[in-house]
Amino acid sequence: MKLGRLNHIGVVVPDMAAALAHWRDVMGATSFEEPHVPQDGLKIMFVNTPTHSGNDGTQMELIQPLNDKTAVSGFLAKNAAGGQHHVCFEVPDIDAAREEFEAMGKRVLGPTRIGAHGTPIFFVHPKDMQGMLTEIMETPKGDH
Amino acid sequence: MKLGRLNHIGVVVPDMAAALAHWRDVMGATSFEEPHVPQDGLKIMFVNTPTHSGNDGTQMELIQPLNDKTAVSGFLAKNAAGGQHHVCFEVPDIDAAREEFEAMGKRVLGPTRIGAHGTPIFFVHPKDMQGMLTEIMETPKGDH
Repeated sequence: MKLGRLNHIGVVVPDMAAALAHWRDVMGATSFEEPHVPQDGLKIMFVNTPTHSGNDGTQMELIQPLNDKTAVSGFLAKNAAGGQHHVCFEVPDIDAAREEFEAMGKRVLGPTRIGAHGTPIFFVHPKDMQGMLTEIMETPKGDH
Repeated sequence: MKLGRLNHIGVVVPDMAAALAHWRDVMGATSFEEPHVPQDGLKIMFVNTPTHSGNDGTQMELIQPLNDKTAVSGFLAKNAAGGQHHVCFEVPDIDAAREEFEAMGKRVLGPTRIGAHGTPIFFVHPKDMQGMLTEIMETPKGDH
């Protein structure tokens, strides 16, 4: 594939209200975004970050699991304070990207599905990706 | 502080050659950058990522410890495959930012020093930063 835009960094948080207060009051964020498509069992908020020219930088995706059976519940059980969970890069065509990763022998986790930004996504196993859980996401039509 | 640009994501890697091959051959990166200022005991390379308008997106900072006494050696000992290590946000004035973090009671780790991009930096303890080791970096004059 051709490297796309770093759309967001996924961050698991134990308490969304405390996380939003941190990003607003400590880090000085002024722009937040609700997910376009809710994700089962997860409370999600995006923090917008500035670029040289606007507010369309790589987002921080804050993810709070609402029960102990979600995709991030195990991470929080091991990391009570939360922390960096995954990186997400954009591609123009999700099906072509999936074929490429599979052809390279990378373990794609589960079916392609619709992510929080409303475009198709899949995840690739961290053990095949330099220790980083990596999300691949079809580029949305808007800024994010 | 006012949230600045997400300059880079620090990623610890066990083997720089393998990491560069991953970013080039698997992820499709085409642009890499040497550190402006070498860091003691660390081999560092930056991966440039695209934005909507250019190649000035948030970088991936690949960091390989060259001995077992560096700031990232402990991370690698616990995470043999490597992985996401820190996030780095830019500020216009490093001394003002340090004063703000200290006034908020955040644990700033060590003295302000010159980072790989050649501008002053400091780190804030992950336990005070939602589980994320957070680097604060004075904005460089160039793109990164």
